[in-house]
Amino acid sequence: MDQEEQDSRYRRLRARVARLTDPVALSTESRLVRRLDMLLIVWGVLGVLLGDEPAFAAERPLLVDVPLAGFILVFLIRLWVLPDQLGHEMKAAAATRLDWLCSSRGLVDFLGAWAIPAALLCGLPAEDADLFGVLWVFKLARYSQGLSVLWRVIQIEAEPLAGVLFAFMVTLVCAAVLAHLLERTAQPAAFGTVAMSLWWTITTLTTTGYGDVTPVTTAGRMLAGLVMMSGIVVFALWAGILATGFSQEMRRRAFLRTWDLVARVPFFHAVGATVIAAVAQRLRAREVCAGSVVVRKGDAGDCMFFIVEGGVEVHLPDASPRLGNGTFFGEMALISGAPRSATVIATRTTQLLILDIADFRDLAVRYPELSQAIHEEAQNRRHCPTAEGEQQDAEA
Amino acid sequence: MDQEEQDSRYRRLRARVARLTDPVALSTESRLVRRLDMLLIVWGVLGVLLGDEPAFAAERPLLVDVPLAGFILVFLIRLWVLPDQLGHEMKAAAATRLDWLCSSRGLVDFLGAWAIPAALLCGLPAEDADLFGVLWVFKLARYSQGLSVLWRVIQIEAEPLAGVLFAFMVTLVCAAVLAHLLERTAQPAAFGTVAMSLWWTITTLTTTGYGDVTPVTTAGRMLAGLVMMSGIVVFALWAGILATGFSQEMRRRAFLRTWDLVARVPFFHAVGATVIAAVAQRLRAREVCAGSVVVRKGDAGDCMFFIVEGGVEVHLPDASPRLGNGTFFGEMALISGAPRSATVIATRTTQLLILDIADFRDLAVRYPELSQAIHEEAQNRRHCPTAEGEQQDAEA
Amino acid sequence: MDQEEQDSRYRRLRARVARLTDPVALSTESRLVRRLDMLLIVWGVLGVLLGDEPAFAAERPLLVDVPLAGFILVFLIRLWVLPDQLGHEMKAAAATRLDWLCSSRGLVDFLGAWAIPAALLCGLPAEDADLFGVLWVFKLARYSQGLSVLWRVIQIEAEPLAGVLFAFMVTLVCAAVLAHLLERTAQPAAFGTVAMSLWWTITTLTTTGYGDVTPVTTAGRMLAGLVMMSGIVVFALWAGILATGFSQEMRRRAFLRTWDLVARVPFFHAVGATVIAAVAQRLRAREVCAGSVVVRKGDAGDCMFFIVEGGVEVHLPDASPRLGNGTFFGEMALISGAPRSATVIATRTTQLLILDIADFRDLAVRYPELSQAIHEEAQNRRHCPTAEGEQQDAEA
Amino acid sequence: MDQEEQDSRYRRLRARVARLTDPVALSTESRLVRRLDMLLIVWGVLGVLLGDEPAFAAERPLLVDVPLAGFILVFLIRLWVLPDQLGHEMKAAAATRLDWLCSSRGLVDFLGAWAIPAALLCGLPAEDADLFGVLWVFKLARYSQGLSVLWRVIQIEAEPLAGVLFAFMVTLVCAAVLAHLLERTAQPAAFGTVAMSLWWTITTLTTTGYGDVTPVTTAGRMLAGLVMMSGIVVFALWAGILATGFSQEMRRRAFLRTWDLVARVPFFHAVGATVIAAVAQRLRAREVCAGSVVVRKGDAGDCMFFIVEGGVEVHLPDASPRLGNGTFFGEMALISGAPRSATVIATRTTQLLILDIADFRDLAVRYPELSQAIHEEAQNRRHCPTAEGEQQDAEA
Repeated sequence: MDQEEQDSRYRRLRARVARLTDPVALSTESRLVRRLDMLLIVWGVLGVLLGDEPAFAAERPLLVDVPLAGFILVFLIRLWVLPDQLGHEMKAAAATRLDWLCSSRGLVDFLGAWAIPAALLCGLPAEDADLFGVLWVFKLARYSQGLSVLWRVIQIEAEPLAGVLFAFMVTLVCAAVLAHLLERTAQPAAFGTVAMSLWWTITTLTTTGYGDVTPVTTAGRMLAGLVMMSGIVVFALWAGILATGFSQEMRRRAFLRTWDLVARVPFFHAVGATVIAAVAQRLRAREVCAGSVVVRKGDAGDCMFFIVEGGVEVHLPDASPRLGNGTFFGEMALISGAPRSATVIATRTTQLLILDIADFRDLAVRYPELSQAIHEEAQNRRHCPTAEGEQQDAEA
Repeated sequence: MDQEEQDSRYRRLRARVARLTDPVALSTESRLVRRLDMLLIVWGVLGVLLGDEPAFAAERPLLVDVPLAGFILVFLIRLWVLPDQLGHEMKAAAATRLDWLCSSRGLVDFLGAWAIPAALLCGLPAEDADLFGVLWVFKLARYSQGLSVLWRVIQIEAEPLAGVLFAFMVTLVCAAVLAHLLERTAQPAAFGTVAMSLWWTITTLTTTGYGDVTPVTTAGRMLAGLVMMSGIVVFALWAGILATGFSQEMRRRAFLRTWDLVARVPFFHAVGATVIAAVAQRLRAREVCAGSVVVRKGDAGDCMFFIVEGGVEVHLPDASPRLGNGTFFGEMALISGAPRSATVIATRTTQLLILDIADFRDLAVRYPELSQAIHEEAQNRRHCPTAEGEQQDAEA
Repeated sequence: MDQEEQDSRYRRLRARVARLTDPVALSTESRLVRRLDMLLIVWGVLGVLLGDEPAFAAERPLLVDVPLAGFILVFLIRLWVLPDQLGHEMKAAAATRLDWLCSSRGLVDFLGAWAIPAALLCGLPAEDADLFGVLWVFKLARYSQGLSVLWRVIQIEAEPLAGVLFAFMVTLVCAAVLAHLLERTAQPAAFGTVAMSLWWTITTLTTTGYGDVTPVTTAGRMLAGLVMMSGIVVFALWAGILATGFSQEMRRRAFLRTWDLVARVPFFHAVGATVIAAVAQRLRAREVCAGSVVVRKGDAGDCMFFIVEGGVEVHLPDASPRLGNGTFFGEMALISGAPRSATVIATRTTQLLILDIADFRDLAVRYPELSQAIHEEAQNRRHCPTAEGEQQDAEA
Repeated sequence: MDQEEQDSRYRRLRARVARLTDPVALSTESRLVRRLDMLLIVWGVLGVLLGDEPAFAAERPLLVDVPLAGFILVFLIRLWVLPDQLGHEMKAAAATRLDWLCSSRGLVDFLGAWAIPAALLCGLPAEDADLFGVLWVFKLARYSQGLSVLWRVIQIEAEPLAGVLFAFMVTLVCAAVLAHLLERTAQPAAFGTVAMSLWWTITTLTTTGYGDVTPVTTAGRMLAGLVMMSGIVVFALWAGILATGFSQEMRRRAFLRTWDLVARVPFFHAVGATVIAAVAQRLRAREVCAGSVVVRKGDAGDCMFFIVEGGVEVHLPDASPRLGNGTFFGEMALISGAPRSATVIATRTTQLLILDIADFRDLAVRYPELSQAIHEEAQNRRHCPTAEGEQQDAEA
């Protein structure tokens, strides 16, 4: 019985730690844990950047060793609680852990924790071993949505990107050979072989222009002008393709996220599927913390809000009705054009969908039923604001 | 009674100054005041830039002290008339002034007026105190719509921008560590520590390429080529996101502004709401001063005009009918393709909406009712141009 | 009678020269004249660029004086024939000439012809006077549609461009003052005054990076990193706005040009106005010379052609039917996906409208009536190709 | 009979080699041949780049002579089997070969094989003759779709590109003359003639900024600031036009490729032509090798797949039904939002069409018939998955 209790206590502890360190949990505690993790990473990266400065030689333990110890601890904890986080219905705990170690995230955590100790064991001097700390910067990747988007864009646009890269290589090789031919007699030290003149060509083709090697013959300078011009074109093509793909992917993600949220707002169910598709492409999602002011009285009203999850309080002179899941507010200013008539404050962490005034007007003309539904619901609420607000809130 | 009269005279004076310095008033006088304010700012900024040149040492009072005195005066006047400009129905005059001082605009005005005197009082030499005059450049922000757009774009696109910034930082740190590893033995003075090699990395990653530090080893040069290529990609992504967001926001603003104006043109009320939404996305707003030529006889006609507010005179050989609020002109050239048949001159400051010929043709096909309404109204006017023009004008 | 005949001969000569030098005439002779004019301009500009090289001192008359004489001649001829080209029904010949001299084109021609002689008369040395020849490059503007587009784009996008320019200026001024503060003690020669440090700031903000002045303090280098990053953002915004506006304006021009041409193809009249608007947005205009091969037998067929004006010959094994104004060809390959079954050669200068296969498929689905009309007409022609072709040609 | 048999054996051999070296064949052997060809080209280009380095002098035969021998062999084989590859029904074999030699591909192969031997015969030293090997990089062009796209974009956007190039030239010439005027007295060695100051102007206008020549006068530095700013605008315009055109052309190609594939999936025939056009614009094509995992159990499902040609195996717990040409899979995850319920592996090289979840949702709302058809077919299959899968496979 004692053993069982101890076992169950251990399991509860592990489950609690798992919840705390869950990378997608929304509770205040796990957010704090993530903030601390981020702080530790930034500390570690700064430590690596500054650690080998003679001025900071004395602080090296503080700069590098403390975050390293932190990362080892984080790694061990993560490995321990992993089965609780990912679920082990299908596999044994050991297999779950091995899978995670082989994933890109697990590998980064593993290397971040053990690369420096391993390097020290292999006999590298401490300054060199510390440089492996640069791997820590990749740990930040899990907190950045941008990188995963970038990766997907590169996959989708692989073909045109490769085409432009190829054009870049062709220009580079041809320009290097031509520069070698034109300048080798005048500057044998800088253009004596094709490989040497490659250095000048790449600094010029990217318009970096160090100026340590420059052509001196007239023909060489004409070639330089052409290389500068074509270099910028090649790069601009690459950049244009990436930027286009990036903005498309961001729009796609926003659409998918909004779509899921729209489905949870009962109001939209009534207005029909065609409207939902149109609305979902225009809404923007935003999360506000408890206590933050969503709308300030007297401000110009340029959007309305739908509450997906959470609650807000409308500060009217005579009453402060609460609005809960599935309701909306801020539509008055869009209809009348007047400034906000009341301040609205979130009572807890609230997921909102925002409809801009420009989109509202456009949608109102295209889908009159949406406009009418908003008018009707707004009028209903005005007659019994507190009641409905609380009822909605109670439902939540 | 004497006291009362004096009081009322004081109030009228304050109200007059308030109207003159109102930042959004459209009267000729307040425009002139704004021009003078702008001139003073430009003068002050130039003064700060040139004031510490030895060649201009003698002109320092003229360059810096005169605009400073002007800004102090402007600040005091603004503080004085503030309650008249913003209205004090809701709050006391003192509260209004405090609120304004805490706003970004008030703060800039306050610092612009008192930073240099305060610095001088604290014992800084005059040359150093003058440098606070650089704050004056922020006063220009109120005359630039672009900055507020930029700010909104950065807010909306915060997530992808942060993602790209993160990718930039990862590249920067990794490249700095690699450059340190590859070049430290060859150039200990420039790549001896990671922090040192950061300087080379950032000048290369942004393709600035000062050339004060360049890699000399083959591996270092290969790394340099990669850094140049990835740097331009990271920046191009950032720029692409910002440029896309910027153009979207400008279009949104234009739509909102046009929408409000379209609602004031009675002609559009007749053609139905769907057409209005389509039209509002294509019209461009323009304001012309009294006496300026809107259309010149014999020019190619590539647009038609709707008058939102103001009036124009059509210079025909036999008569000069006037057109007022809500009318339109210039449609003949779009329909017939002939050059302009008359010169049109604005009789007072006039707010116009412009419909381009390409958009006119596209709209005419999509919404035949719009095309027909324009034809009918144009024909009506041709039968009794003077009468209707004057009638419209009288209505205005 | 003799005087009258001489007079009429003079007028005929002037009219002939006017036709030859008409800047928009389509005849072979006037094209040749325009080519010669362009050649003269290029010659002149090259002359100015090379004229003051010591190596070319002996060739100066050939490089600069010959084109100058040419431009004076061109100017006098243009002035002479101007009334014939522009028509003088409304005004006297002298007034027409004066109007032209005051226009931008006339001014460029006037200055191009007389600036160097005037400078020589004023006593400038020949080398300096020759530099006025740089004005000749502006004569090329009349042969470039791009410049007028650029001008219109700058007008339309003036507001956002000014906003970004303002942001650039703010960054420039603030960075210059900060750089002055951070570096003035370390490098008084380069950052001693604010105006001096402006030079470093602008070379860094534009990422040009000469490297003649670089910051040496740690704080200065951090500032440099920020300046490089913000500089590229400011420029990218500007470029993004211009590029967007440019591509919109080009599309607008293409639409207007195509619209006028579509209206001249009888085939489109039958398919209704909605289709025309859709088609006009997708067609591209192209002009081919007499004798050029429009379609080559065996090539992949990726577009079909409508003849606006001109004629083509279809080289079939057994016959060579001719197609004239308003007909179309090349539709077989789009329908069947097979390679071109015949070579088509233009018999005279022909204006074509090109419909791409991707647009054809998209249009065919959206507007089945268009697809059907093409099928029917194609089948009709197949039954009596020669007859109809010749009949069409005769109509032309 | 012996001669005839030998003849037929020779023909069969030639036909086999022709199939192996066919540049568009999809068989495993011809893919391997293409890979080897690519490897040979990369080897050759690297050889040219490194061949004249003193360190590699001894390896020159390996670096340059081996790939050269390879290219000569490839050229001869290609010439030999050409009639089999292109077909000689219409022409004699000799004419086919001559045509190919005159095409751009044939010319590149011809020069790649014979330029170095010819140069050696002409008496050039081996190092110089080797530089002709740079032509080999153009042989790669046939493996890059990007270059042909780039070429088409340049043709379509020729007019605006020329306009911007012209603006660039005007700025260049004017800035060079101004810089010459402003700096010639201070720096006669760098700005003494207009042609000399062109070198500074182009390095500044492209923001390369070598720093070997910089203006020293105040006026010259102001000009430099303007040149940097206008240079980046000119280039950005050019880049913007190219990037827009490039992305349009890529979308056009994807549409054409997808359209052809959609027509081969029987499922789409049932849902009507309008839907096909909409679907074809959103599908992406992808080819997977035999044995590759298309869908992994437990992954998030963000797309569904249509099989154009090939086959896949669905690994369910109790059975592994096979799906063949014209079927689809992966739709469950889109409808339910659940993770993938089974792993799907390609049984042979399979051409897939991918429909993204965002597009699926959008299409489902716009074209309910598509959504319903997918539901119905999915339900049918669930009742008799193995049977239908095998039946479909048998049909293939």
